[in-house]
Amino acid sequence: MINQANSNEEDSGTAILHRTPQKRPAKSWQDWLIGRPLPTADAPHQTIGKLVGLAVFAGDALSSVAYAPQETLVILAAAGTAGFQYAFPIAVAVTLLLAIVTISYQQTIHAYPGGGGAYIVARDNLGEIPAQIAGAALLIDYILLAAVAVASGSAQIISAYPALSSYRVIIAIGLILVIMLVNLRGVKESGTAFAIPVYFFLATAFLTVGVGFLRFFTGTLGTVIDPPMLDYVGLTQPVTLFLILRAFSSGTTALTGVECISNGVTAFKEPRSQNAGLTMIWMSAILGVLFLGITFLLHQIGAVPSEAETVISQLARTVYGSRGFLYMCTIIGTTIILVLATNTAFADFPRLSAILAVDGFLPRQLTFRGSRLVYSRGIVALGVIASLLVILFNASVTALVPLWAIGVFLSFTLSQFGMAHRWWKIGHLKQKMEMQERGSVLVYEPGWHSKMFINGLGAFVTAIVTAVFAITKFQGGAWIVILLIPILVVAFSAIYRHYRRLAASLALKHDKPRSHIKRHRVILPFSGVHEGTLAALSYARILSSDITAVYVSMDNNEAESIRKKWEVWGEGVRLVILDSPYRLLLEPLLSYIEEIIHKRQPNEIITIVVPHFIPRHWWSNVLHTQTATMLRLALLFRPGIVITEVPYQVD
Amino acid sequence: MINQANSNEEDSGTAILHRTPQKRPAKSWQDWLIGRPLPTADAPHQTIGKLVGLAVFAGDALSSVAYAPQETLVILAAAGTAGFQYAFPIAVAVTLLLAIVTISYQQTIHAYPGGGGAYIVARDNLGEIPAQIAGAALLIDYILLAAVAVASGSAQIISAYPALSSYRVIIAIGLILVIMLVNLRGVKESGTAFAIPVYFFLATAFLTVGVGFLRFFTGTLGTVIDPPMLDYVGLTQPVTLFLILRAFSSGTTALTGVECISNGVTAFKEPRSQNAGLTMIWMSAILGVLFLGITFLLHQIGAVPSEAETVISQLARTVYGSRGFLYMCTIIGTTIILVLATNTAFADFPRLSAILAVDGFLPRQLTFRGSRLVYSRGIVALGVIASLLVILFNASVTALVPLWAIGVFLSFTLSQFGMAHRWWKIGHLKQKMEMQERGSVLVYEPGWHSKMFINGLGAFVTAIVTAVFAITKFQGGAWIVILLIPILVVAFSAIYRHYRRLAASLALKHDKPRSHIKRHRVILPFSGVHEGTLAALSYARILSSDITAVYVSMDNNEAESIRKKWEVWGEGVRLVILDSPYRLLLEPLLSYIEEIIHKRQPNEIITIVVPHFIPRHWWSNVLHTQTATMLRLALLFRPGIVITEVPYQVD
Repeated sequence: MINQANSNEEDSGTAILHRTPQKRPAKSWQDWLIGRPLPTADAPHQTIGKLVGLAVFAGDALSSVAYAPQETLVILAAAGTAGFQYAFPIAVAVTLLLAIVTISYQQTIHAYPGGGGAYIVARDNLGEIPAQIAGAALLIDYILLAAVAVASGSAQIISAYPALSSYRVIIAIGLILVIMLVNLRGVKESGTAFAIPVYFFLATAFLTVGVGFLRFFTGTLGTVIDPPMLDYVGLTQPVTLFLILRAFSSGTTALTGVECISNGVTAFKEPRSQNAGLTMIWMSAILGVLFLGITFLLHQIGAVPSEAETVISQLARTVYGSRGFLYMCTIIGTTIILVLATNTAFADFPRLSAILAVDGFLPRQLTFRGSRLVYSRGIVALGVIASLLVILFNASVTALVPLWAIGVFLSFTLSQFGMAHRWWKIGHLKQKMEMQERGSVLVYEPGWHSKMFINGLGAFVTAIVTAVFAITKFQGGAWIVILLIPILVVAFSAIYRHYRRLAASLALKHDKPRSHIKRHRVILPFSGVHEGTLAALSYARILSSDITAVYVSMDNNEAESIRKKWEVWGEGVRLVILDSPYRLLLEPLLSYIEEIIHKRQPNEIITIVVPHFIPRHWWSNVLHTQTATMLRLALLFRPGIVITEVPYQVD
Repeated sequence: MINQANSNEEDSGTAILHRTPQKRPAKSWQDWLIGRPLPTADAPHQTIGKLVGLAVFAGDALSSVAYAPQETLVILAAAGTAGFQYAFPIAVAVTLLLAIVTISYQQTIHAYPGGGGAYIVARDNLGEIPAQIAGAALLIDYILLAAVAVASGSAQIISAYPALSSYRVIIAIGLILVIMLVNLRGVKESGTAFAIPVYFFLATAFLTVGVGFLRFFTGTLGTVIDPPMLDYVGLTQPVTLFLILRAFSSGTTALTGVECISNGVTAFKEPRSQNAGLTMIWMSAILGVLFLGITFLLHQIGAVPSEAETVISQLARTVYGSRGFLYMCTIIGTTIILVLATNTAFADFPRLSAILAVDGFLPRQLTFRGSRLVYSRGIVALGVIASLLVILFNASVTALVPLWAIGVFLSFTLSQFGMAHRWWKIGHLKQKMEMQERGSVLVYEPGWHSKMFINGLGAFVTAIVTAVFAITKFQGGAWIVILLIPILVVAFSAIYRHYRRLAASLALKHDKPRSHIKRHRVILPFSGVHEGTLAALSYARILSSDITAVYVSMDNNEAESIRKKWEVWGEGVRLVILDSPYRLLLEPLLSYIEEIIHKRQPNEIITIVVPHFIPRHWWSNVLHTQTATMLRLALLFRPGIVITEVPYQVD
């Protein structure tokens, strides 16, 4: 069953056995759900090219075209359909922002070939607090990404099958569960499994936009037949700068996910930084073209933002003239890309949680890889939180968006500001000097001024967008995130301090005098002289010869009977009967124990041995007073006291 | 602090100390709520006379006049106001039933001077199952009594202050809480505390009925001004026999509580049976007169049953001509008698639970008297269940009544049938022979035939009423109770069997060879070499010299580092490193322990010593893997294994 791999007795004289099990773990119901356990040695070390890389990392970013145009229109709807004319200019501004961020991130990719997420860049260049802020913002970002993407996916499905509209929340949670299970199984991020759906989406999206422009230029496009009702109820507002900025803020959700590649540079084939950088440029270009094209066409066909039917569905059925095969392909492609975006959240949230946990800011358990070599606890945590969000916000993308992009832009800002500071540090290094930081190596570069300018511009622009977002969306829900980020940062610090204190307290000190335990007192509380008590007594006798049995008496007659029985069965062990005129059980026992603790000498340890029935049926436990459990709770914080329950099986 | 009462070393050579604490328990927040703890010696042993006895035991029975006439009218309302003419004949039939039950119970009181509740009478004369049925019926009865009485009390308060009508449920639960707290404090059942409110109620009730008849005979009574809307909605039904029987069933709720005195004979002054019997006759007479008088007057004034205003309130304001002082006195008196009825439930439910628990049919904990010498657990259980019922049935008396009286009449039937069987047994005794049963003494009596006839008649009549009730109220809710009683009986038996098996398993056997433990193996699983582990190691070393430290390794480098540290710090103790290629913690440990258990010899015991951090803040526990707790759960059902957590305080 188990073989002895090696057994050695070294100079220390300590016998050390090292055993490796030969067989795999026993089968369980989980295997069926998430697959058989994988040994640690199976961790994959593959790299991917640009084409596959685009598919793996673009899901999150490209999925934005499913909701960003719609959310821009939702805000503009406050000014009536007349407001919709501002959608395209806003899309141009968003695309410009996209270009700036893409250029700025190129430098991050080259500077951090080992992966340069906002948390790592901020940690290396800005210090602990900004890094923790970036970490908190990103964790929130991933949770909202998962919630928004499944909510939007659910909306696409409902657009194609309006009969399902009352199952909006259930469909969204179903999607989360499926993606969670797939991730618990473990997703191979490389390979065609990703490429096929992403390129399918790209084909359908470009076909829809292409056919749309063809019909636009030939004058046969027309407008949406039988459009859904405009959801916006209320007085039509004038078009104000504030409204435009709010619509712009919603449009910036198109940028979510473009930073993904900077986290995953290591996944690319060599020259990895170059490959990753080019892939990112391609991705941004595709995103920009689709975003501009879709927004332009939506205005032409007079699409109306609505929870009942997505604008993508309105565009597709107008462009193709019916809800035919090509329409269905567009909806399926869009839903698939949204599912892949959710998958990104399920890949990145547990990974970032594990990084934060290794650094001591989150519970250590999050670093533990489950049976399938994935960070299972983080995956489950994300699934639960995202499901709660979907229920709370009734699977409405419009309700979730105000909470979302602020975290994304805050992390952009911190990351780019960190990069700018990094160039400043590089500029002030002595020539040919290298400096090793935790995430990268600093080497002097002559052109550091212009590079600092590019990242500085990125930081500046995204900072402004963050502020605009915070102000315009504050009431709509951004306040929740603005409140949550500092709370998370405080929690990170508290957890960090706890682990630090624990480590200090547990550290071995060579100079500490190690005194051995000199006296071992055993206290044996019991409730009656029976087999269970005698089992505990015979256990107590092998622990120490210094035993005191304690009986709490609420009735003099019973005490007398116990005394007589103990004289027969007590094996000569000292018995103390504690009268309890107030019929309390625990209190007299505790005060007796306290008294003994009080008289305790140094190097004396006290063990309390409690007989404990193990009944045949779990429900029988309610028929017994759980004295041992209550004693344990009462004495938990007393040093030098060990509580031992001696089980006695009853059958 | 504690004095040594006596200390003796008897022939057995066992030192036995008996200690009695001098001081009272420390103050706690509970003292403010329910009073300071009382020593066992303070249990009262007072007896009461007939006048006070009437007050103590009549609350439950007399309170029926507050709802029984109303519930009769509620059913008749199905036939429109024309149905109300049948109320008085029904009341006459109910009063006749009351007379039969009273006469029948006289014999119970004389036969069981030590208290003859239905459970005891059925147990002695009919056997275990009928006794358990009676017990189950009575427990349900007391719960429903509490719920109905506070619901009716709440309805009286709302009748006087209609503005409170939306707080119906809250008022009812508030009443339960107050009565529960009073009972946790402990109620002295003797004394004027009971006499004043009961006689106040009697005065107001007789005044209302008296003035009502005076005005009726002088022709000045008139009808209810501005009566509430009739709640009944639906087609007016014809008056059928079934409807009359349903109304009669509701009317029989007037009999609930008349049996109370038979439980409490011991509380009376000598000659106690005679005093108790006379008190019961007085009580029944008063109840009959009030019930008949009120029902008669209600018909004359054209009162309408309604959840908005009770018929008592309609009667009082019609009799007194306004909502003046006398009206308020009547409402207050009625509410008080309902509160006292609830109090009866809180006195009797815990007492019956304790009797059932002593007999082994309910958890032993119910026999425990709390700090104020009352069965606190039973009181709290009743308060919780009754509150749930009030919430579930929206504090509606009409909704609760169908569940109720069936339990009462079932217990009447069993009790009277038991009595009849007792007379049969007495008749077949040899002359001048005595037979001791658990609850009473059987002595031959010449007139046993007629006595058996009286109890037999009582049993027969109440059995018919039970059947009528079960049939006519089945759909309305009686099915719940008909289902619940067998479930409770099965639960009683299961609990009884559990305690029997436990007792058999724990019984000391003199002839059993007592072999002492020969080998004590200690297993010390640990997660790292640090102060906590060394504390556990030094504890393990005083337990046994046969120690194996076990480390589960998920990473070869870490295993190497642990091995090196153990050679320095391990005090030469044997170390086993278990490789865990599937990154499982508990499973390799468990399979190693299983292997050791497998190889175990007889008289060998295994102790698993687990280091356990005690952090400063409770929340820090989520930051640690609770290995010890998980191990305990996994090994709970393995005999011969003791798990010991050695606490290590971290600060």
